[in-house]
Amino acid sequence: MILKDLHQMADASRRAAWALAASDLNIRNAALLAMARKLNAHQEKIFAANAADVADATAANLAAPLLHRLKFREEKLAAVTAGLEALAQLPDPIGQTTIARELTEGLTMYRVACPIGVIGVIFESRPDALVQIASLALKSGNAVLLKGGREALRTNAVLCDCLREAAAEVGLPADFAQLLTTREDVAAMLREDELIDLIIPRGSNEFVRYIMDNSRIPVLGHADGICHVYVDKAADIDMAVSIAVDSKTQNVAVCNAMETLLVHRDISEAYLQKLLPAMQTKKVRLLGDENVRAIIPVEPADEADWATEYLDYTLSIRVVDDLDAAIEHINHYGSGHTDCIVTSDTSAAKAFLTRVDSAGVYHNVSTRFADGFVYGFGAEVGIATGKIHARGPMGLEGLTTYKYKLLGSGQLMAEMKSGARHYTHKLLNEECPL
Amino acid sequence: MILKDLHQMADASRRAAWALAASDLNIRNAALLAMARKLNAHQEKIFAANAADVADATAANLAAPLLHRLKFREEKLAAVTAGLEALAQLPDPIGQTTIARELTEGLTMYRVACPIGVIGVIFESRPDALVQIASLALKSGNAVLLKGGREALRTNAVLCDCLREAAAEVGLPADFAQLLTTREDVAAMLREDELIDLIIPRGSNEFVRYIMDNSRIPVLGHADGICHVYVDKAADIDMAVSIAVDSKTQNVAVCNAMETLLVHRDISEAYLQKLLPAMQTKKVRLLGDENVRAIIPVEPADEADWATEYLDYTLSIRVVDDLDAAIEHINHYGSGHTDCIVTSDTSAAKAFLTRVDSAGVYHNVSTRFADGFVYGFGAEVGIATGKIHARGPMGLEGLTTYKYKLLGSGQLMAEMKSGARHYTHKLLNEECPL
Repeated sequence: MILKDLHQMADASRRAAWALAASDLNIRNAALLAMARKLNAHQEKIFAANAADVADATAANLAAPLLHRLKFREEKLAAVTAGLEALAQLPDPIGQTTIARELTEGLTMYRVACPIGVIGVIFESRPDALVQIASLALKSGNAVLLKGGREALRTNAVLCDCLREAAAEVGLPADFAQLLTTREDVAAMLREDELIDLIIPRGSNEFVRYIMDNSRIPVLGHADGICHVYVDKAADIDMAVSIAVDSKTQNVAVCNAMETLLVHRDISEAYLQKLLPAMQTKKVRLLGDENVRAIIPVEPADEADWATEYLDYTLSIRVVDDLDAAIEHINHYGSGHTDCIVTSDTSAAKAFLTRVDSAGVYHNVSTRFADGFVYGFGAEVGIATGKIHARGPMGLEGLTTYKYKLLGSGQLMAEMKSGARHYTHKLLNEECPL
Repeated sequence: MILKDLHQMADASRRAAWALAASDLNIRNAALLAMARKLNAHQEKIFAANAADVADATAANLAAPLLHRLKFREEKLAAVTAGLEALAQLPDPIGQTTIARELTEGLTMYRVACPIGVIGVIFESRPDALVQIASLALKSGNAVLLKGGREALRTNAVLCDCLREAAAEVGLPADFAQLLTTREDVAAMLREDELIDLIIPRGSNEFVRYIMDNSRIPVLGHADGICHVYVDKAADIDMAVSIAVDSKTQNVAVCNAMETLLVHRDISEAYLQKLLPAMQTKKVRLLGDENVRAIIPVEPADEADWATEYLDYTLSIRVVDDLDAAIEHINHYGSGHTDCIVTSDTSAAKAFLTRVDSAGVYHNVSTRFADGFVYGFGAEVGIATGKIHARGPMGLEGLTTYKYKLLGSGQLMAEMKSGARHYTHKLLNEECPL
């Protein structure tokens, strides 16, 4: 394989992005349906490439959960093509007018949603993620440079070719999606701040920091989830036990699983006595501070535990003096992902939801609900743990920006300054005609 | 003066931000009105501090336009206090529900606007900017670390003290606004990525790049404006002359002034013959490519001119073969700020507005209209030249993000997976009750 120069690739992405920004929704939707057909038509080739990837990964002794994520067979193909068809049904994320205002007679300003442009996405060894990300990008008029896990290299190459062919078939630029294959490609991509508008890295905190430290391109980090459940003194104890068990154990390997449980001092004895057997049934290893250990027999938790994302059947527990202490703990140790209060006290819930500085703030519901599909966004590019641009589960809207279109008839600033014209600033309820 | 440790200052900002995020709109508005009163009450002290700053700047031979921006007397005080009173009338930028959706029976998701948190703003030697930025931050529930130009140090210190006292008087934390005084403070601020959510640097491209290269904190750059006017072959020549003159000369020292004029080949002779005397009247130095110089006597423009922000009575002119070439030129050399097409051809206008990749894309109107006040946003923190989060003139909305509040009654993911519950995904038209 001859490696293309990354700068040339980024330039091709930029040109593809301009074509996509000017494309009709019907064409973009036709491309999505063509992608589904193309993937089905080439399924033997995809499965063969994937079998080779899986064989190598098995020989290299890849951990079972990762191997499971790497496998791409009939079931995942069906899910991916169903996703493409559903995406084709969604309304156009670009082109809507979000503000229309007459500035002065004969001059109207429209704020219109438009694509971001060229987006670099670095994702884990899950080939279905490639299709999801590329299709969301195309639907929203963006071009993507994609770097997947190296274990999935062959599968990703075949999948990306299918998507590119489908786009070309309906007259859109194949270069809307291009695959990067090496770490050197990623390093080179991070330097292309004149051509690339946004980097979305999915991975560990350390990885996201590495990206931020090595690029001027804006980064929407999708990093750790150190999620908390706080059991308030006014909690329903049974509900608080079941929410804690679900948040911790329904799937331990995901970013919206609970890592630390906080319990109000006044309810700690009654609650922890009930929690212990429930967590034992699920074989969860429990760690606690000394107040917890005075009530139930668990291993000691130290300072490092409060900042650890276990992604495993392990839970740290801390007794707190009051709601303020719980909020303080979460804002200090948390990752701004998703945190829950269990309480029947509405004012405590309101204080928690207002003051906890996280993308998801929950009252009486498992943290596992933090997900783009669950929120009704159709699909997600990832879960943003920063606060700029997009926060939390990031769907099509997160892949858009806007521009201001001003339609005039010769208006000059000199006329405004002289008083020959004046500002009317009249809000209008209309779409931009251009 | 004892310099406070920047980390302690950032930590104090963070705590102030949490208090502000939970504050009532009436209290924030009361603070704005108290600020106006406080500034009026302390005007002698402000003017004295400013006189000292101006004396030093005069002695240091500061350029006249900069000296003019530095001066803070009755007229600017009146403008600033009027701005505070107007800001107090604007609706709350935080707290509104922008999506409400039932996820499953008894569980509702609300997306609610909230402050970003702690924002570092680095601005030029214009003391009124300090009041504008700090007041916009407080209205939107954010804390700010402010670094102004060193020429305005004494004025800024008195102004900031007034704003802090006013906030404290109504019960909000004085530390919502803190003043940085040295470059070392700025360097230290850039390292506080755990405490600071956003940096807004206003200044040159080089300065914004320096900030981006030296911080993990997201940056909303407010950099160069290389704005273009493109005179299409179907332009009204008189309108195209007056728009070019206004865009270039109404105020040459601002980022929304035109720097390069592009002219369609077919209209170039007739247009340039009319443009020349109009620009000569305004004493504009003209540079052109060889096609321009074949028509009117101007100095030669070279490659560097297309990428230069003159901020002066200088204009580079280029003849282009067609609309595509104009768009290509703008997307290549422009800074994504504001670009205008003059034409009576609607389809050419539509292509230009869709394909030019800038925050402001104008049809038949001077580029000088790119401004937050002109757009009806009340005030602006700056004009963002990137595409992420906020683009173009950035008002209160740019200082907000959102969080997802989920209000449940014990819902578990295990119930969704088992089919005991199902997703309803019903859009609701209601505000979040908590």
